[in-house]
Amino acid sequence: MHFELLAREKKYHGKIVDLIVDRLKYPSGTETIREIIEHPGGAVVVALFENNDLLLVRQYRHPFAKEVIELPAGKLDKGEDPLHCAQRELQEETGYASTEWKKLTAIYTTPGFCNEVLHIFEAKNIQQSGKGQALEEGEASIQLMRVPMNDALAMIERQEIVDGKTIVGILMSAGRQK
Amino acid sequence: MHFELLAREKKYHGKIVDLIVDRLKYPSGTETIREIIEHPGGAVVVALFENNDLLLVRQYRHPFAKEVIELPAGKLDKGEDPLHCAQRELQEETGYASTEWKKLTAIYTTPGFCNEVLHIFEAKNIQQSGKGQALEEGEASIQLMRVPMNDALAMIERQEIVDGKTIVGILMSAGRQK
Repeated sequence: MHFELLAREKKYHGKIVDLIVDRLKYPSGTETIREIIEHPGGAVVVALFENNDLLLVRQYRHPFAKEVIELPAGKLDKGEDPLHCAQRELQEETGYASTEWKKLTAIYTTPGFCNEVLHIFEAKNIQQSGKGQALEEGEASIQLMRVPMNDALAMIERQEIVDGKTIVGILMSAGRQK
Repeated sequence: MHFELLAREKKYHGKIVDLIVDRLKYPSGTETIREIIEHPGGAVVVALFENNDLLLVRQYRHPFAKEVIELPAGKLDKGEDPLHCAQRELQEETGYASTEWKKLTAIYTTPGFCNEVLHIFEAKNIQQSGKGQALEEGEASIQLMRVPMNDALAMIERQEIVDGKTIVGILMSAGRQK
């Protein structure tokens, strides 16, 4: 893409996201703006019990003002290794741990306007760690769900699971088990 | 989720996104903020040739300052029906059209901080419409790619396709063809 970056301005510096507005000029001379949401990225866990049942979480999501069913996930701390984040979030959100980790992929959630990258891992043979959950106050309503893989696939078809990262993680993990 | 909404402020009103900051109070008395990116949503097309090859687009994405391989997609105009948007975007971005449309799902791209919903459709037996592409200036670098479904699945495994909506669309469409 050929353009000239005329100006960059940080319009908002927030708790989770920053908002940047770039002013660009195309070779034709046309000027335009591009809004970029900056996000630290995160890690997502396809957490599987010994029989390959999935561990899902149902939690309130403020942008939709309703509960959404998702894989356990959370934001990267500054400089944090994605696998460490995945292990930490699984423990904190669910109280489960695993010793069998494998990376499935890393996705761009919405590359048109946001630089968020989510690293998706598969954790097998999860066990309760004994340390329990460590929920932030905003997560207090999290409910854990144990769901057989075939039921999860049906929930995707019925649009009961609609979270993008969750569908990617479940379908990629299911595809590898065939 | 039980909390009291103390205040809502629109911090930015933009071209593609708005940014809202809510101040909430939990029953414990703790106050917190929640940032919401408001996005109009969009439509995505799993566009299949008569032999089930996929039509993909490679385009520059400013938040990552590089080219990303995606399904054809675009934003909903105000009040636009998602299927109309899908048909319009397929025509404008690629010059192809179809008469066989089916909805696969609608996904939340990143529900922690953004209300974007993407409606994903499958279009079969796509044909060049004869009207050609109608690209916006920022899309002038779009390259079309015709990719056999098995190659697309391999590109997902090799992390050459990393866009979330694109992985969801391809895997859901591939799953139905089995």
